[in-house]
Amino acid sequence: MPQKKPLILVTNDDGITAPGIRALIEVMNTIGEVYVVAPDSPQSATGHAITINDTLYCDKLKVHEGEVQKEYSCSGTPVDSVKLAINEILKRKPDLCVSGVNHGSNSSINVIYSGTMSAAVEAGTLGIPAIGFSLLDYSWDADFEPCKPFIEKLAKQCLQNGLPKGVVLNVNIPKLSSSELKGIKVCRQANAHWEENFDKRVNPLGREYYWLTGEFVNEDKGEDTDEWALANGYVSVVPVQFDLTAHHAIKDINTWELQ
Amino acid sequence: MPQKKPLILVTNDDGITAPGIRALIEVMNTIGEVYVVAPDSPQSATGHAITINDTLYCDKLKVHEGEVQKEYSCSGTPVDSVKLAINEILKRKPDLCVSGVNHGSNSSINVIYSGTMSAAVEAGTLGIPAIGFSLLDYSWDADFEPCKPFIEKLAKQCLQNGLPKGVVLNVNIPKLSSSELKGIKVCRQANAHWEENFDKRVNPLGREYYWLTGEFVNEDKGEDTDEWALANGYVSVVPVQFDLTAHHAIKDINTWELQ
Repeated sequence: MPQKKPLILVTNDDGITAPGIRALIEVMNTIGEVYVVAPDSPQSATGHAITINDTLYCDKLKVHEGEVQKEYSCSGTPVDSVKLAINEILKRKPDLCVSGVNHGSNSSINVIYSGTMSAAVEAGTLGIPAIGFSLLDYSWDADFEPCKPFIEKLAKQCLQNGLPKGVVLNVNIPKLSSSELKGIKVCRQANAHWEENFDKRVNPLGREYYWLTGEFVNEDKGEDTDEWALANGYVSVVPVQFDLTAHHAIKDINTWELQ
Repeated sequence: MPQKKPLILVTNDDGITAPGIRALIEVMNTIGEVYVVAPDSPQSATGHAITINDTLYCDKLKVHEGEVQKEYSCSGTPVDSVKLAINEILKRKPDLCVSGVNHGSNSSINVIYSGTMSAAVEAGTLGIPAIGFSLLDYSWDADFEPCKPFIEKLAKQCLQNGLPKGVVLNVNIPKLSSSELKGIKVCRQANAHWEENFDKRVNPLGREYYWLTGEFVNEDKGEDTDEWALANGYVSVVPVQFDLTAHHAIKDINTWELQ
């Protein structure tokens, strides 16, 4: 851990007033100097979207009186918030970026849709150690208390040890009580996907429209996966990379008739 | 290549009327039976965003008279378009999904921001061989003619050979004439990032706002990278995976004091 108080950037995708980010801020205030730069409205499932054709507002505010952190709400996406924080708000590069706590799972393939994780990944591309936290409870009044000791431990270990270059952490926490949570498992992302099931309706003007719904399908029974860990009472930690190259496939594609 | 005419899904992120998707449709019409399901408006840099809090419209249309493909415009993102196509529009799972041709580069780290590539990745998660194509020219009247032979070759090779499980292709094409283009190189994603430079302004009501601008910084001089290939006149092909696990980092994180 750095000798001086670490500088910590907190963001999320559920919006700056979400209970999940309040839990995260509370823990970070015990560890370092905290800046919050987060979307002014919910941005779930925005993935790695950025705002290039519209303006961005970023306003200083105080969500609750008496809290010590500095807070800014951003009109853009989670990734916009991280970019603005690093380039316009923070006085120096932070020692850690934490995102969440997300209301709902970002395990397995959900990592690619997740605004929470995209914010962490963006910080990672800028060389900042970063962790995304998610609780497997979509409810707005989810109980974040059991998460706090795990968040504290992981943030402190990350500050102390750093992260390998090009890697951020995807942390998911089961919806269990403190006594039921068994500990932490470092895992790989389970091989899973979503099978959609659109709900087709007709609007009052007679035009058809859809609601996206879907079913999560886990094809992977491996006991080294995040899905296994979560189903068995463990907090899952998946190291996530943003070099998306499938290095093993380069040889295969080179056998094609390409010239 | 399948004996019967392959079924091909075409999508993009620049919107269904963009010149780039017209070039892609033209080539695909020579290879198979083509369905186009693409956003009704530009969706650049939407990443892997999906629409979960709003309705989706999907309307059959004909962009140009006399063209043979079936076309649908979708009110959502590129990923929504792929989900809708597979689940509601196409009669069976397509043999190939192609996305693009994007107006502008999606090489290197741009893959994580790209709606074009997210559409291809989404198809990949559903087990469909998929390729995203991008031309290094942001102009709306870019010349897509030199791209066409490469698009045809890669699509046909993909139909013939298939792709390794969990892999899609990210194809970028330099802005060069046919005689200048040197061929195809299979590459890894260069290690690069964006350094932002926000343009801060004041609106007529006196409120500060920002435009996101940035500079692409390539820290990677490797001759096996997409950036090297593109700078040297080659079409770059990067196999991209959506298992984001940094497998090499699991051992590192397991040395932390986590229990």
